[in-house]
Amino acid sequence: MTLRKDSTRAAVTAAPGQDEFRAAMSRLAGAVNIVTTDGPAGRAGFTASAVCSVTDTPPTLLVCCNRTRSLGAYIEQNTAIAVNTLAPEHEALAAAFGGKETQEDRFERATWSRLVSGAPILEGSLVSFDCRIATFSDVGTHRVLFCEIEAIQLGRRGSASIWFDRGFHRVGEPA
Amino acid sequence: MTLRKDSTRAAVTAAPGQDEFRAAMSRLAGAVNIVTTDGPAGRAGFTASAVCSVTDTPPTLLVCCNRTRSLGAYIEQNTAIAVNTLAPEHEALAAAFGGKETQEDRFERATWSRLVSGAPILEGSLVSFDCRIATFSDVGTHRVLFCEIEAIQLGRRGSASIWFDRGFHRVGEPA
Repeated sequence: MTLRKDSTRAAVTAAPGQDEFRAAMSRLAGAVNIVTTDGPAGRAGFTASAVCSVTDTPPTLLVCCNRTRSLGAYIEQNTAIAVNTLAPEHEALAAAFGGKETQEDRFERATWSRLVSGAPILEGSLVSFDCRIATFSDVGTHRVLFCEIEAIQLGRRGSASIWFDRGFHRVGEPA
Repeated sequence: MTLRKDSTRAAVTAAPGQDEFRAAMSRLAGAVNIVTTDGPAGRAGFTASAVCSVTDTPPTLLVCCNRTRSLGAYIEQNTAIAVNTLAPEHEALAAAFGGKETQEDRFERATWSRLVSGAPILEGSLVSFDCRIATFSDVGTHRVLFCEIEAIQLGRRGSASIWFDRGFHRVGEPA
């Protein structure tokens, strides 16, 4: 329901539906990450921008993922997760991990290692956070994973890949 | 504890401390937002990049804030919150809402309105999400607020302000 379009050309919508929510969220830029997991349920990964810092005591971040898609079936059993933050040269990789390829095909596109938890760590990432899922909250269709950081792989300084306005962008100076 | 520096010049740290966590988090870019609240505890606002989408059913986002600083004292009583996503021209405003000015002085720097919840909505924001706090999770020093979106103010398309590598950046074409 659109309430007004005022002189600054802002449109106001009360009780937004899914389409209006998605259009609005396209204005909230986010870093592009590949979130990976491994454990009893096997290895999997998906592209996510819904990742943020929670607290430094203890070092914790959160990841929001769909309970029925994305890592849903894996995170019921696996407790290890890694957040691999991407540089602009990883756009094709980000598209693959957000697409319809099998998990096996996705991982064949890059070189991976392990740190402490066993979740796949991307070689050449801007930064990778190796985590244990400490707890979670379910909200509607999604699960928010609170992840304690057990190890960090800090890559070279360089540009970051940003998802904004339904496309890839870059910020920062190249490495 | 640094485990290795390999040939790709990535440094690996196990059991990261606060400084190592913060250095790593500086690589995780985020949109710059002013989060505001109003209600029984009064009006307040702070600058935050720890904001992300949760689910579109019902439209929900999350905001992570320090329980003792930021909006801590306010969100114990207020149930209304707004996320105002900033354009590059709002850098001084973002710095003010992240600094030591009084709440009154901060709000005098810009023009605000209200939508449904009563939380302050920034005129000229890229997008503003007007929310009710539905529930929350406490994690260490911080509280993660799960906020149901009651109204949206969608501004003109234009560039977004990004916090990355401890500084402001911009993405997207100017309006």
